[in-house]
Amino acid sequence: MSETVGVSLLGAGNIGAGVIAALSAGASRYAARVGRPIEVRRVLVRDTARVRAGLAPHQIVGRLEDVLGDPGTQIVIEIMGGEHPAREAIEAALRSGRHVVTANKEVMAKAGGELLQIAADHGVRLLYEASVGGGIPVIGPLSRDLLANEVSAITAIINGTTNYMLTAMTQQGADYADVLAEAQRLGYAEPDPTADVEGIDAAYKIAVLCGLAFNVEIRPDEVARQGITSITARDIAYAERLGYVIKLLASARLISGAVAATVQPTLVGANEPLAKVDGVLNAVQFEGDLVGRVLFEGPGAGPGPTSSSILADVLDVAQDVVTGRRPLAFVPRRRLRVALPAEHEARYYLRIAVQDQPGVLARIAAVLGEQQISIASVIQFDRATADGTAELVFTTHQASGGALQTAVAAIRAMDVVREVGNVLPMAG
Amino acid sequence: MSETVGVSLLGAGNIGAGVIAALSAGASRYAARVGRPIEVRRVLVRDTARVRAGLAPHQIVGRLEDVLGDPGTQIVIEIMGGEHPAREAIEAALRSGRHVVTANKEVMAKAGGELLQIAADHGVRLLYEASVGGGIPVIGPLSRDLLANEVSAITAIINGTTNYMLTAMTQQGADYADVLAEAQRLGYAEPDPTADVEGIDAAYKIAVLCGLAFNVEIRPDEVARQGITSITARDIAYAERLGYVIKLLASARLISGAVAATVQPTLVGANEPLAKVDGVLNAVQFEGDLVGRVLFEGPGAGPGPTSSSILADVLDVAQDVVTGRRPLAFVPRRRLRVALPAEHEARYYLRIAVQDQPGVLARIAAVLGEQQISIASVIQFDRATADGTAELVFTTHQASGGALQTAVAAIRAMDVVREVGNVLPMAG
Repeated sequence: MSETVGVSLLGAGNIGAGVIAALSAGASRYAARVGRPIEVRRVLVRDTARVRAGLAPHQIVGRLEDVLGDPGTQIVIEIMGGEHPAREAIEAALRSGRHVVTANKEVMAKAGGELLQIAADHGVRLLYEASVGGGIPVIGPLSRDLLANEVSAITAIINGTTNYMLTAMTQQGADYADVLAEAQRLGYAEPDPTADVEGIDAAYKIAVLCGLAFNVEIRPDEVARQGITSITARDIAYAERLGYVIKLLASARLISGAVAATVQPTLVGANEPLAKVDGVLNAVQFEGDLVGRVLFEGPGAGPGPTSSSILADVLDVAQDVVTGRRPLAFVPRRRLRVALPAEHEARYYLRIAVQDQPGVLARIAAVLGEQQISIASVIQFDRATADGTAELVFTTHQASGGALQTAVAAIRAMDVVREVGNVLPMAG
Repeated sequence: MSETVGVSLLGAGNIGAGVIAALSAGASRYAARVGRPIEVRRVLVRDTARVRAGLAPHQIVGRLEDVLGDPGTQIVIEIMGGEHPAREAIEAALRSGRHVVTANKEVMAKAGGELLQIAADHGVRLLYEASVGGGIPVIGPLSRDLLANEVSAITAIINGTTNYMLTAMTQQGADYADVLAEAQRLGYAEPDPTADVEGIDAAYKIAVLCGLAFNVEIRPDEVARQGITSITARDIAYAERLGYVIKLLASARLISGAVAATVQPTLVGANEPLAKVDGVLNAVQFEGDLVGRVLFEGPGAGPGPTSSSILADVLDVAQDVVTGRRPLAFVPRRRLRVALPAEHEARYYLRIAVQDQPGVLARIAAVLGEQQISIASVIQFDRATADGTAELVFTTHQASGGALQTAVAAIRAMDVVREVGNVLPMAG
């Protein structure tokens, strides 16, 4: 029996440096918890010539085979990011009998079910706490602490960039473009912000959570997705006057045997816990049949929080290595039909620019009525502009997404309608 | 090898009925996760003559020996509550080689370290997720998901009764006595509310969390404890005007080699996540060196949430039974010196009733200054009353608890001071 538990890293960078520093700083505590010291064996990097803090030259390798060829490596930490070659590296590590800890949301979203099956077939574990919610425990609580529950819904603020931007728009009354520029200057948004502002990052994460919460496989491109690029300072101001804040919510639920997963800007009731999650914070709310609603909130990114989650997984599986625990039987994930957006139900907010003339409101109300959509409120917050445009904000009672799509198409075609602005769901 | 995992319950009542109902409703899911069905073997009750839903007569027993004499029982769930005879029953179950799952905060606070050692000595596990925070995962995240962190502080709203009462006082401007009566009518407060309103319940829970977060043993009577009975509608109104809400916070931190644990009404900055936890909800916030701050929020009581936590532990240990995992090595808890309240440091709020005459404010300020306590603000919110009493509200910068005690004694002795009202710490 080995006297240490050996870990090797695929990828270095900020996160890798954070993990290595934490393993060194916490060495004696971790050894006491695990029962043996944890030893960093190999680190796979692109540039093997560069000197790295805390690592000897023989630990730095340039080929995956140099890691997998090391008999002292029992756990592989994958922090390369991106789909390829990370996915192939994870698969090779699992097939070589190594436990794998990954922070890779994209790979887990696109191939999680398959890789978990490969892990089970090879008697090893694949852990991925850091792939969703940064430092917030999400995967662990869902797979252990809430395991007795039938989870009915997940609702999450799971992208720090967009939450920072929407919070700034709300607090400063600022416009999207200004806030994006500020977020880029502060390093909260990438030079190319597409993955964040279009909800792609959040779609990966909600797909990962669907696998865990419902044991259902859903591809990220099956998540109904709308980014925040169309949200204006007006929408946020109207929402506020109605008692709501706009958040980019990632959510998933089962509806009559189908799985519905969305990433959408949503009006959230100002007293809801999720409405109060501001700035770069992330939060994930679960609804279970026994527990009701629980919410986890914390930092969704950064080397410290990500290291916290990666090392939680490393310590967990290291304990298995020492105690000889066999992995649990894997319950293969179901493939369910993916609910179409038309099948979703919600209360809706509609902002519509119209010609300021009598009878317009009644005509729009009639179109909604034809689709059995019941109106909760209509408000013209401001006077018509000089060119005779008035902006109406409708809110509806619970309505089907299909009926709403039909009504919106009909409203858009009306001669007195200048623009149908945002159509957003409302929650809480 | 047995074909089921056998669980027996010590105690019935609401929680027991909830656990049994959930085990029945989730039977097939739980069997898939564990690898074997979970079977309810015996239920220890006071009144064996009463018929109980879902149980056959042979399952209902009146003596602990009838449970421990059952070779099919591998896991014992203790939900009797109170210190005796629950503590002795847990110990007997552990010594008989049974894993134990308990919801008992009092026993875990008073004897947790000792019982965990007994469990380790007998190669079994003692789990207690339901003892703190009802359905909110707290023990699990702390012992697994946040294990890589050096935890520096825990701050929690951990008693639903008092949080309901303080929230009602804040939202309705109501007085303590009225709100207590309403809480009793709604069943949120006991006929004898002492354990809740005096912070005894919260002290048990923070003592349990000290053991886990710091691996430090602290007795519940070593927790510096102040209840909410002295909080008035005035205090809440003053706090609000200063930008704070009053919450009964249970907190623990290490200060220079000593452990400081308190349960105290505290002014919490209105933008802090904990300030937004309202009604009967509970929340626990951890600060760790890697993760920063994370917060878990949810229902702190009730049969459903409590069953969720009990069954999470049952499923966890049942997986161990099936996979043959040996328990981890137990790291015995340290005994640290308990910090005296005089060693605590905080910003403070002081409400002082004085004779309305010139120079009084200056004299009080001078007394604070003598103790090196720096004043952040002094406000007389309202005019003096007809009898010439004016109420002053002081807030201080960071000050030592000892200096504050000395200053408050001197202020109380001043001829112009009619009453020193509440002296409360401020956070956030």
